[in-house]
Amino acid sequence: MKRFKSVKGGVTAARGFLAAGVEAGIKPGRPDLALLVAEKPAAVAGLFTSNRIQAAPVRLCRDRLRGGRATAVIVNAGCANACTGKQGAKDAELMGRLTAQALGVDPKTVFVCSTGTIGVKMPMDKIAAGIPKAVRALSGKGGPRAVRAIMTTDTVAKEAAVELRVGGRPVRVGGMAKGAGMIEPNMATMLAFVTTDARVAPTALQQCLREAVAESFNRITVDGDQSTNDTILLLASGAAGNAALSLRHRDWGRFCEAVKAVCYELAMKIVEDGEGATKFVTITVRGARTDAEAHLAARAIARSFLVKTSWYGGDPNWGRVIDAVGYSGADVREERVDIRYDAIRVVRNGQKAENVALRELEKVIANGASRSTWI
Amino acid sequence: MKRFKSVKGGVTAARGFLAAGVEAGIKPGRPDLALLVAEKPAAVAGLFTSNRIQAAPVRLCRDRLRGGRATAVIVNAGCANACTGKQGAKDAELMGRLTAQALGVDPKTVFVCSTGTIGVKMPMDKIAAGIPKAVRALSGKGGPRAVRAIMTTDTVAKEAAVELRVGGRPVRVGGMAKGAGMIEPNMATMLAFVTTDARVAPTALQQCLREAVAESFNRITVDGDQSTNDTILLLASGAAGNAALSLRHRDWGRFCEAVKAVCYELAMKIVEDGEGATKFVTITVRGARTDAEAHLAARAIARSFLVKTSWYGGDPNWGRVIDAVGYSGADVREERVDIRYDAIRVVRNGQKAENVALRELEKVIANGASRSTWI
Repeated sequence: MKRFKSVKGGVTAARGFLAAGVEAGIKPGRPDLALLVAEKPAAVAGLFTSNRIQAAPVRLCRDRLRGGRATAVIVNAGCANACTGKQGAKDAELMGRLTAQALGVDPKTVFVCSTGTIGVKMPMDKIAAGIPKAVRALSGKGGPRAVRAIMTTDTVAKEAAVELRVGGRPVRVGGMAKGAGMIEPNMATMLAFVTTDARVAPTALQQCLREAVAESFNRITVDGDQSTNDTILLLASGAAGNAALSLRHRDWGRFCEAVKAVCYELAMKIVEDGEGATKFVTITVRGARTDAEAHLAARAIARSFLVKTSWYGGDPNWGRVIDAVGYSGADVREERVDIRYDAIRVVRNGQKAENVALRELEKVIANGASRSTWI
Repeated sequence: MKRFKSVKGGVTAARGFLAAGVEAGIKPGRPDLALLVAEKPAAVAGLFTSNRIQAAPVRLCRDRLRGGRATAVIVNAGCANACTGKQGAKDAELMGRLTAQALGVDPKTVFVCSTGTIGVKMPMDKIAAGIPKAVRALSGKGGPRAVRAIMTTDTVAKEAAVELRVGGRPVRVGGMAKGAGMIEPNMATMLAFVTTDARVAPTALQQCLREAVAESFNRITVDGDQSTNDTILLLASGAAGNAALSLRHRDWGRFCEAVKAVCYELAMKIVEDGEGATKFVTITVRGARTDAEAHLAARAIARSFLVKTSWYGGDPNWGRVIDAVGYSGADVREERVDIRYDAIRVVRNGQKAENVALRELEKVIANGASRSTWI
């Protein structure tokens, strides 16, 4: 994030967006219904869980994404609307239609997301009463209130926004996310909404989102369980008035970096707020033949119960790290493996390193930093 | 196991085998060196960890398996001889050679196994002093002492043996195993040794072992981590005097069932003794298109952190079960999923079942039994 100027406002940091977060009574006493609105139809990109069991709103969003335009996203917490059968599909559709009616927009441009308990029917009376309330509360400074309404087991609100220049004009990218459990690459019980006032061609927008997610949300893991509701939507309002960005634009790379920076910061906030998490560990793999193999190795280490328990117990057990690399599927050569915890090398060429500074190592483990390198 | 007559004796239940377990001082005050000897060269089959990081003795055993004959297996606890480089390979070779010298057999027929801490050099002075001690202690009733010498974090000794008739003659299959942590299909920090006095053609023996392991050791999981040392060896002495068993023998299927029964009982004992385990859960998948898909679904459920924590917390959270099935890779159709905990159906056709007996359900969860069904 250091490469971009941070700004406030979350999903309403970018021009052309309004947001609200209200109490609909699904989770008594807490905001539980969020609404994000584009003042004019925005270009939209989206990515969804790869779980075969998909919540009704995920199927609805996937379908509406084909239209390429979004005017609103309505999100509830407290009920996932997953494993709810045909009624669930009807409820998601109705939730979108009621929002469209209240806003006076085309229902096909309204996206619907839910997060919460699986297998419970949607409290549609509360949703129906909450939607007009959310519409009345819409504000160009509503981002920080909207993010509070999508929290479930989250303990902190997760927002990020940056500013950059595209074609000489100031452009903003901002976002909000929720997620604390069922967190695993290829997303999570994770909802994330990113907005930008840049004008971007829809196909380019989808590619930008895919790349940003690959290097942010798809690289985190908390509990290894991939949820039924994961959704990330990226809306581009064009309110910045720049000439439309596409893959050949000279600022394209910079813009994509900004989207990735926002996704990365949101992803890090999800890990920091992981259910029951006591430590935040980053795994760096160097010298892999391919990115995919590096990813396999890192993921095996990150998911390992035994590696997790050794961190939790304050015991730097590198045998468990090298064991995980061995079964990761990466093409590892034992005699070339080095393992470091921060700067402290504990394994050299596949064997225990000499003269390890154990005191320093204990401090690293206590703090929760890590680097694992293999070649 | 009910289909076979249980007998005592573990690896020495079958005729033609001697065993010993002695204190070599690797783990002070506890037996830590086991020796299994075939009175005459036995046919041998073996399977090993698929981890890319393999302990030196695993590489040695894999190599010697090509000879098809075994006279002895020497096993130490307390040191895994993994990630020990060239010295580790030399140590494993020496451990076999010293055993061969003490027994007066061909070193190429001596198998070597180690279990314990990764990355620590073998205490060869203790091993060298322990081997003659083990040879002196060899006995046809040594199985129960040998099993105690291969335990690491195990809290109970794991043995099983059965008797059946092959070609009208009584034949025995017996075994011992160790393993409590790093337990995952495609084996585990698991060592298992199975013996039989049946005469079996070597290639048939390998096939028999592969099938038995596929439906026993490869279907258990404790912590999801696959170790560097997993080894299972099956030795057939031929002392029963039967006509050699091969795939066309009419008692072949029955014999393989007996090997599987012994492997299954040993595998169950490993799970029951899992490090930190508080519950023993069996997952049954019905109606899958293929065995492989059933296996994927069962494994995703079994490995899920969230499913494990819901069992631990006494909370029958079926949303986590169906979520795991969804990302398992199995070709699941949500609208056909049923989930039962024992006889109590909680999900019907992908949705919450009506009138669930919650009191009964809590009892099932408290006891740790489970059945998950999907079509």
